[in-house]
Amino acid sequence: MILINGIESAAIDPCDRGFAYGDGVFRTLALRDSQPLLWRRHYARLAHDATALGIACPDEQVLAADIATVAPRHADGAIRITLTRGIAPRGYAMQLGSATTRVVACSPRTAAAAKAVRARWCDLRLGIQPALAGIKHLNRIENVLARAEWQDPSIAEGLLLDTRGNVIGGTMSNLVLYRDGLLTTPALNECGIAGVTRDLIVEYARAEGLPVRIAPVRREDVQAADGVFLLNSLIGVWQITALGDLAWPEHELAARMRKWIGDAEAH
Amino acid sequence: MILINGIESAAIDPCDRGFAYGDGVFRTLALRDSQPLLWRRHYARLAHDATALGIACPDEQVLAADIATVAPRHADGAIRITLTRGIAPRGYAMQLGSATTRVVACSPRTAAAAKAVRARWCDLRLGIQPALAGIKHLNRIENVLARAEWQDPSIAEGLLLDTRGNVIGGTMSNLVLYRDGLLTTPALNECGIAGVTRDLIVEYARAEGLPVRIAPVRREDVQAADGVFLLNSLIGVWQITALGDLAWPEHELAARMRKWIGDAEAH
Repeated sequence: MILINGIESAAIDPCDRGFAYGDGVFRTLALRDSQPLLWRRHYARLAHDATALGIACPDEQVLAADIATVAPRHADGAIRITLTRGIAPRGYAMQLGSATTRVVACSPRTAAAAKAVRARWCDLRLGIQPALAGIKHLNRIENVLARAEWQDPSIAEGLLLDTRGNVIGGTMSNLVLYRDGLLTTPALNECGIAGVTRDLIVEYARAEGLPVRIAPVRREDVQAADGVFLLNSLIGVWQITALGDLAWPEHELAARMRKWIGDAEAH
Repeated sequence: MILINGIESAAIDPCDRGFAYGDGVFRTLALRDSQPLLWRRHYARLAHDATALGIACPDEQVLAADIATVAPRHADGAIRITLTRGIAPRGYAMQLGSATTRVVACSPRTAAAAKAVRARWCDLRLGIQPALAGIKHLNRIENVLARAEWQDPSIAEGLLLDTRGNVIGGTMSNLVLYRDGLLTTPALNECGIAGVTRDLIVEYARAEGLPVRIAPVRREDVQAADGVFLLNSLIGVWQITALGDLAWPEHELAARMRKWIGDAEAH
């Protein structure tokens, strides 16, 4: 079920700037018993991203009401919220007073039972764009091309470097490394998407006294880690136990991070 | 008037990957007396771009028939053709056998009578992405943000550098410099869009014995040029006669380039 500006519909205007230029943002979140998980965190990120692009973000209550309408269809499904700069005539110039288009869609969640996964390195390098770094915007061809690099269903995720050779994350997930008592996640000030689960893990780790470093990560750092983990709102925490020729035993931090997520969800 | 897959409609499925991820390509071209100008060149570029992203391009005749249907509405208007990877469930992975969505829209052409224009330098730097360089894809937030840097209607275009400091072109146009008998246009192998008019000018200049260099261009090269020109399919050729503190007198090359375009259109 899909609501467009609050109305059940399957029609985006082809003049919508989300379609014409990818001029918008989105977030994906999980439902449990038809309730959105970590809603306030997701809303805060969505509002941040929209504001960064100069797109008016609807009030939290408006989006929450849309979610309440669509959620019963797939009580443990996924919600995608898309906001665009709205409908406008041809041309890159923003139109004053154009109204944000909001799309709230509910779909089944493809069961990702795996918790220990195989990953690979992608060949595509993410472009550096500080003006868009961290934002979950609709310009995602890089992710599409990276995900198209493999078909082997036994590989769950691909890791991406940027054009400087820094590791940024997976095609659809954030990355966390653990080594010698230190948790590291790639800095996302030049490219990549800052996910809600990553925020949460950084916050809970620090609250528990586990040092966290947000910094550039090199491929060697990944290879030398004691544990490598992928995060997103639908998968939760995956541990990478195989990456190319490398293998890791399961690490206790995965369960600890899952507990933090559970605590935050219950909060 | 807008045709979606050949049918008059104003509805894009919100699950279309063009909307979800900007996963598609487009081209814009001019009509004269309801006939598309430089059609074979535009089709060739569109097909090239679609193929580069692994999107099946409809046959030339199919798109030409769509254009013939919409063109009478604005006999001297503009056509935008958009191709996307089609409708698919959530997720970056491409679905085998998904059908390309094609959108052919006709709109009035906003009269760009000006031939000598003012331009400015944009602050935004284009990210380097060789996998997408030259392609007119739907991921255009960079162009949107660059175009939002100025509101002064007396400024017709903004010039963009990439993160290496190379000049790439305007927010909606390609750039050509002339100096000491040599025509230079920025190389577009790291970012930017390769337009049909730029192809045509390079081809006609070489055919007339005017040397052409396709190479990295620095800001100093622009400032030191005898003439600086902007090209696209709707504006034709604009000469930049004012750029920041710099001013140029009108240069005879502009009229020569307009003649080449006219010759190619008549061909």
